[in-house]
Amino acid sequence: MAAFRLPIRRRQDDSGSNVLVPGGTWMGVDGQTPVARTAGRRGLLRGGLRLGASALIGAAAPRAANADTASPPADPIWSQSLGPGVVSRVYGVPSHFEKDVIRRNVPFLTATPESSVSFTPLQSQTGIITASGLFFERYHAGRPTVDPSQHRLMVHGMVDQPRLFTMQDLHRFPSVSRIHFIECPANGGMEWRAAQLNSLQFTHGMIGCAEWTGVKVSTVFNEVGIKSTGKWVLVEGADAAHMARSIPLEKLLDDCLLVYGQNGEALRPEQGYPLRLLVPGWQGNVNVKWIRRLQIGDQPWFTREETAKYTELMPDGKARGFTWPIYAKSVITFPCPEMPVHGAGIYEIRGFAWSGLGRIRQVDVSVDGGINWSRAALGDPVLPKALTRFTLPWRWDGKPALLQSRAVDETGFVQPTIAQLRSVRGTNAIYNNNSIQTWQLKADGSVYDVELG
Amino acid sequence: MAAFRLPIRRRQDDSGSNVLVPGGTWMGVDGQTPVARTAGRRGLLRGGLRLGASALIGAAAPRAANADTASPPADPIWSQSLGPGVVSRVYGVPSHFEKDVIRRNVPFLTATPESSVSFTPLQSQTGIITASGLFFERYHAGRPTVDPSQHRLMVHGMVDQPRLFTMQDLHRFPSVSRIHFIECPANGGMEWRAAQLNSLQFTHGMIGCAEWTGVKVSTVFNEVGIKSTGKWVLVEGADAAHMARSIPLEKLLDDCLLVYGQNGEALRPEQGYPLRLLVPGWQGNVNVKWIRRLQIGDQPWFTREETAKYTELMPDGKARGFTWPIYAKSVITFPCPEMPVHGAGIYEIRGFAWSGLGRIRQVDVSVDGGINWSRAALGDPVLPKALTRFTLPWRWDGKPALLQSRAVDETGFVQPTIAQLRSVRGTNAIYNNNSIQTWQLKADGSVYDVELG
Repeated sequence: MAAFRLPIRRRQDDSGSNVLVPGGTWMGVDGQTPVARTAGRRGLLRGGLRLGASALIGAAAPRAANADTASPPADPIWSQSLGPGVVSRVYGVPSHFEKDVIRRNVPFLTATPESSVSFTPLQSQTGIITASGLFFERYHAGRPTVDPSQHRLMVHGMVDQPRLFTMQDLHRFPSVSRIHFIECPANGGMEWRAAQLNSLQFTHGMIGCAEWTGVKVSTVFNEVGIKSTGKWVLVEGADAAHMARSIPLEKLLDDCLLVYGQNGEALRPEQGYPLRLLVPGWQGNVNVKWIRRLQIGDQPWFTREETAKYTELMPDGKARGFTWPIYAKSVITFPCPEMPVHGAGIYEIRGFAWSGLGRIRQVDVSVDGGINWSRAALGDPVLPKALTRFTLPWRWDGKPALLQSRAVDETGFVQPTIAQLRSVRGTNAIYNNNSIQTWQLKADGSVYDVELG
Repeated sequence: MAAFRLPIRRRQDDSGSNVLVPGGTWMGVDGQTPVARTAGRRGLLRGGLRLGASALIGAAAPRAANADTASPPADPIWSQSLGPGVVSRVYGVPSHFEKDVIRRNVPFLTATPESSVSFTPLQSQTGIITASGLFFERYHAGRPTVDPSQHRLMVHGMVDQPRLFTMQDLHRFPSVSRIHFIECPANGGMEWRAAQLNSLQFTHGMIGCAEWTGVKVSTVFNEVGIKSTGKWVLVEGADAAHMARSIPLEKLLDDCLLVYGQNGEALRPEQGYPLRLLVPGWQGNVNVKWIRRLQIGDQPWFTREETAKYTELMPDGKARGFTWPIYAKSVITFPCPEMPVHGAGIYEIRGFAWSGLGRIRQVDVSVDGGINWSRAALGDPVLPKALTRFTLPWRWDGKPALLQSRAVDETGFVQPTIAQLRSVRGTNAIYNNNSIQTWQLKADGSVYDVELG
């Protein structure tokens, strides 16, 4: 029986890792499965068929003499009668077989549903785009229903001429689209003190990645004219919380967008319809939703959301604030607690990596708790400040294992362990846990959220 | 009043085009709007603020002395009370204000709703991703409801060992994600004989672009072993039409996927849940949905869908078949019949371009019916066989105009006019109309689907 080699790139510093697959079949469940190298045959074919060639019907070829070695399976019920036809003006929804792939909340996590959160089912996310219907939510005063025809964006403060913009105005400006993640800095916050949730959705689900479309903040600022004294900007939402944060003018001019589009359609209500701020790579809280005001000033405002909240209480008793960027982070999405393994054999370890500072450069995977590491393959496209897929083939021998992933971004930042983070920040923190996640795989294939001692 | 220059790249061969904007403001509605160059100020700021810098709360800065020159607008109703809170296990949907952004069909176009089509509202698509709920549908026997736990994919014919794969098997194989468009080759088919539909949705809406996730067909073929005599593959759907097409083995080995994921979640029912074939860049019809069978043979099968349908009746009476690739194409999405212009001034012309042969290299835009052309900017990322955004600023003088876009792909293929296509193919065709679309903009801002004489 011929074996084929999987396309694994070895790291130069690999030393005896058991991650790499020496050869075998993917199903690998019995000895009956033949394997062949179609790769070699492709060369033979290449001269015979030209892509894009056309043929005249009825001119040349006889019907194929295809030597079937098996009959097609019997028709299932859905192949025997017409399904429902096209209905106009219906907005498509997922299959009812997927009803458990859904946002979830943790009821005890927040005192009220109006100031609460729901989590993306990251364990089921197939690509870098998060489906808009599954994109995590975070409200501070519930989800306002904003009439786009009545909504206004005010830009004022240290400007030559304050202005109110309608949504029609904003749609008229030059537009750009960008694929970026948004992550709540409290993602994984319960793990600081080792709450083991046994759930990828709850440890890492306050993140989503979408194609956002809107107007560069710099374009709008060009219209009002920023005075030379302006250095900071207060951004404020139209929700009843009047969610407000101070952002350096330089960041807003660099790459921030006023977003009205998400994954090809209008922004979703829970993401700030009709208008939100996108601050690429920075903590979700500053990506203010239902944005209605940009006020230019010369100092930060020290709002509630950047003093009482979204700061980090350090071991010396001082609170660190304005810790905006999301640093390099990654997590394995298969296997994970919601996605156990069914028997020994060959699998593909899968996950996502991301960095608020740019592109992911590499992801390494360990199955022995960080002793040996193997380089994972990154899925195209690798975009800055976006989720990046990584994969690594792995032959599981059926013995307990400790799975970890470790991201490195283009700045050279290496994702730390939780022990490394605690050595600097202590255990009072809630925010900015970008530590390496450990999944314990047991011999029965179940997976648990653990911490290494 | 200071004017600012828009970032327009001039083509070297531009000759007196009225497309380029010499300067002005985007709103441009009155003389009150001051404009300033924030670009110059960014240099000044760059030394003053460091991105990612942190500050200790309460340690340094006094509260900002912000000189407001206007008060914030009064609180609208939605800023005065709590909105609905987070509800667990709810799949998110668009705002009800967007209820008219929806797939639509043309009732007279098909005899039955079971073999029919609905169109993507391309006029409202904000980025290159088509929202899954708005992605066009094309059925041949209605939409089957396929139970993923019962679904099987058979691979047989000229193979070493025929195999039945479960969905669980397929999820276990190495996975890849790709962003590609799928276009029905009948998109624009009514235009061959100059049916003027006055609707972008109906002239160009049988296209969508998504991030697809699945298994390379070559991976599955590795498992069964393709015999050296195999050259063609019959692909068959599990719908009651048993939709079947012949595809060269080489194309399947090159870049085709068995897809189970779409935009980060499971494939949508109307797109083939739980499994479809993705044939990047080739006409939609061969991207067989609800796929259940791959049969390897040595000749094409000449199925109904590649003889009676999906062929082109040429002027000499012969039918051209197997015309698979989608050639370079583009269309302006603003302005368009559904998106008229409101008064003279500066606008951004927007649209999409795509090619089944690779990346879009350039898009040119004309506002005078093809006499003068200006180079549009392409939006990142420019991906092969994917929708690509293009934009061009334009000052409309309020006079009638004829808007066109013309795509060129990386093979050098230039999108033709309808006259050029007819000179070769006559007017019997239905499929593969990739001609330049002309929108007539009238002085009142309304837009019509026209053909140049």
